[in-house]
Amino acid sequence: MKVVALSGGVGGARLLDGLARALDPGALTAIVNTGDDFVHLGLCVSPDLDTVMYTLAGLAHEERGWGLAEETFAGLGMIKRYQGPDWFALGDRDLATHLLRTEALRSGVSLSSITARLCGALGIAQRVLPMSDAPVRTMIETTGEGTLPFQQWFVRRRAEPPVRAVRFEGERVPAPGVVAAVDACDFVVVGPSNPYVSVDPILCLDGVRDAIARKPVVAISPIVGGAAIKGPLASMIRELTGQAASAGAVARHYGGLVRAMVVERGDEETVASIPVLGASTVMRSRDDRLRLAREVLAFAAKALS
Amino acid sequence: MKVVALSGGVGGARLLDGLARALDPGALTAIVNTGDDFVHLGLCVSPDLDTVMYTLAGLAHEERGWGLAEETFAGLGMIKRYQGPDWFALGDRDLATHLLRTEALRSGVSLSSITARLCGALGIAQRVLPMSDAPVRTMIETTGEGTLPFQQWFVRRRAEPPVRAVRFEGERVPAPGVVAAVDACDFVVVGPSNPYVSVDPILCLDGVRDAIARKPVVAISPIVGGAAIKGPLASMIRELTGQAASAGAVARHYGGLVRAMVVERGDEETVASIPVLGASTVMRSRDDRLRLAREVLAFAAKALS
Repeated sequence: MKVVALSGGVGGARLLDGLARALDPGALTAIVNTGDDFVHLGLCVSPDLDTVMYTLAGLAHEERGWGLAEETFAGLGMIKRYQGPDWFALGDRDLATHLLRTEALRSGVSLSSITARLCGALGIAQRVLPMSDAPVRTMIETTGEGTLPFQQWFVRRRAEPPVRAVRFEGERVPAPGVVAAVDACDFVVVGPSNPYVSVDPILCLDGVRDAIARKPVVAISPIVGGAAIKGPLASMIRELTGQAASAGAVARHYGGLVRAMVVERGDEETVASIPVLGASTVMRSRDDRLRLAREVLAFAAKALS
Repeated sequence: MKVVALSGGVGGARLLDGLARALDPGALTAIVNTGDDFVHLGLCVSPDLDTVMYTLAGLAHEERGWGLAEETFAGLGMIKRYQGPDWFALGDRDLATHLLRTEALRSGVSLSSITARLCGALGIAQRVLPMSDAPVRTMIETTGEGTLPFQQWFVRRRAEPPVRAVRFEGERVPAPGVVAAVDACDFVVVGPSNPYVSVDPILCLDGVRDAIARKPVVAISPIVGGAAIKGPLASMIRELTGQAASAGAVARHYGGLVRAMVVERGDEETVASIPVLGASTVMRSRDDRLRLAREVLAFAAKALS
């Protein structure tokens, strides 16, 4: 069985970790959002790729949801001392990732190649593909503060300015292997990631949505009981659709693309017209990830066959 | 009284610290070698400027002679884990300096401007000038291993390949203010730095040697009792001149430029034909730096008047 999973940061990454352990090595390909990527202090930072990589390597900080466990911030302290830009928390170990990636990109190596090399060095057996080697950038059109690049809105402005629209800038070319991996898979899992800023950037790439539409697709809701587990999704749904946040609103956003949904137990009835599995979707421990991944796989095998 | 001091790394930096405390604020201008500067992992590293800056700010690691006190190396550990280039020891706090400098240089800010900005943020009252805003690079012609950039020879090859010649590549333009600072000073102090790879790069710049030659100049010998306090100078003297290493060999190298020498007590008679002061030149403590600086200033006032 071959599975492709679409992922943003923490929620998607945790499900990937469960899927990686539930499946044979080589069965899982992760396609990871790079719409949030940005350049900070001259470093090419790929927040979702890093979260996925650190999570699959067992190195992620469990509670924080970003960065490495046992991370230190001595360099950031010195940046503050120099009155440099300290709004993005660069960890000391994390900096090594950014430095090696940036040097590779500057010397003409593609993002997918350096990602494969870094994942290999961390012992990750699964295939981790950035959605694109080209810079595709998620832009947030806000009410009151104009259009902001994603990280400026999300980190620097703490996701406070209301969102009027989300758009993507840049050449919409998927990375080598992305469409082929979808074509070769048995089904696609859309992780519990933000549909607007984590999954849509992947779906907007040339040929990707069409390739996924030819496959059975199951999505896991990032909305639990009307709230987002993490991040600004709940208010984005309200601002962008006028609807209350619910698993059903996520299902409606994906429209005909998603053929089955896994939602938090109790949220089942917000989803109409496609098969729904109620499960415990909040992954607090590594065991939770594996259990949820197994439930998703079993449900997909049944509902999508 | 206005003093210009030429400096390489640790020895020169320690004397600068003594001079800074012995003189009125504003009386001292340091002109610092940048021939060792290099690009590592995409970062513009200026080892001697950093050592001078950290030393004048009271932040330098006292025993090690490079980098910051209480430095950590978490990022370097992660670079190793990625099998990245780990031959140059980047500290976590030190990285902040390289990141901010590199970003400034890439955005078109000059090395002298970003140096002034970083020194200002660290509370350094003295003027610290890089010798040049242009890349002037010290190249080591070796016996057996061809020509190596300085850091490749010094750090990566541990200064082991014998030196046949030292040459400088790049446009030999002094940084703004360098010649004017020399012109405006009462005398020039050549710090206890390596004449071939720390002081000659400064002297080779257009107009600098001539400007210095118009001033009284006192040099402090980096050779003590026939050995270098730190670094590869003793073997370089043997390889480049066929002479034994001595304070006198350093004086002869500078020729007519230097009009008085401060040497370790007992080394006086290796120097012929110019006034010599015997002193305790090895600076083990911060008190040693201040004492030596005061002796150098008093001797210069007497010998050069």
